[in-house]
Amino acid sequence: MKRALVVFLAAGWLHAASAAERPSYTADGRMLPLPGYREWIFLSAGLDMTYESEPGPSHSTFGNVFVNPQSYRVFMATGRWPDKTTLVIELRDAVTEGSINKGGRYQTQFRGLEVHVKDEKRFPGKWAFFSSDGKEPAQRIPAAADCYTCHQQHGAVDTTFVQFYPTLLKVAQEKGTLAPSAATAR
Amino acid sequence: MKRALVVFLAAGWLHAASAAERPSYTADGRMLPLPGYREWIFLSAGLDMTYESEPGPSHSTFGNVFVNPQSYRVFMATGRWPDKTTLVIELRDAVTEGSINKGGRYQTQFRGLEVHVKDEKRFPGKWAFFSSDGKEPAQRIPAAADCYTCHQQHGAVDTTFVQFYPTLLKVAQEKGTLAPSAATAR
Repeated sequence: MKRALVVFLAAGWLHAASAAERPSYTADGRMLPLPGYREWIFLSAGLDMTYESEPGPSHSTFGNVFVNPQSYRVFMATGRWPDKTTLVIELRDAVTEGSINKGGRYQTQFRGLEVHVKDEKRFPGKWAFFSSDGKEPAQRIPAAADCYTCHQQHGAVDTTFVQFYPTLLKVAQEKGTLAPSAATAR
Repeated sequence: MKRALVVFLAAGWLHAASAAERPSYTADGRMLPLPGYREWIFLSAGLDMTYESEPGPSHSTFGNVFVNPQSYRVFMATGRWPDKTTLVIELRDAVTEGSINKGGRYQTQFRGLEVHVKDEKRFPGKWAFFSSDGKEPAQRIPAAADCYTCHQQHGAVDTTFVQFYPTLLKVAQEKGTLAPSAATAR
């Protein structure tokens, strides 16, 4: 009886946490800000990554990628993303000069967010992208944008770039959930 | 009565979580591995940062910094680190060529950890550094090493490099907890 109560209450605790992670929207389809994303699970960070042959922008930028904790736990157990998975890439200036640093790069000013969300009933392709300033409701990036086709063609797991998240890549390899293109490319 | 039970059990839940965060040691003073650090709070990532005028290593490396969640919450509320604060920097290879990436850098192979831990009763200077492979108990870095004096002289808050963690820097500025050298340097 005592154990049943603990399990019940622990489930309630987890449920309360997951409610705060869930994507929600305005009546006109903009996505509400995700104030807690900095306390989500960190997946990886990149610097000035580009998928085109042209040189990247002259302004140097880090991208920090986070995912909501509940979806992370499902991925670690199964190698798959559940409905309502929300990935956030946070962009920050990459600078060299400051404090005692003499080389390489570190992070300073916030420059915006991009959000990749799985909401199966809401979006025809199950996933959508939003571009956000972190404060106002975010506009959806139109479904014809390059990011959709690129993620569909090259995402290692279910349109997401797990190939760039080393701790998840290992799980997807073990669980056999890599897309055929990603499984043969490495 | 029901509410009291919930509060009691929630406190137990939190206590269990915080116990898993606490540093612990072998009888001969090595620090036990921290298997959950990748699920702690991410503070920032840097690339090839160096505090010396000589050029950095030719091999390019990202450093991802995490802190245990309970100490993070105290810092966000007070701008100060409580006892048992544990900061981890995880080192990973920084590569360009791979998958569809054409420029910049992303993270691959794990290359080791450095741990900075506050354990007031255990260490004469309150804080100590350990170097870890993530698997075996970690050796303490001797107190005469450069990292101790550098962090003492240049750490923005209590010997830690908060100047490189933008979300914490803002809190330390607001709470007035920056070291005098850091407060005047910016």
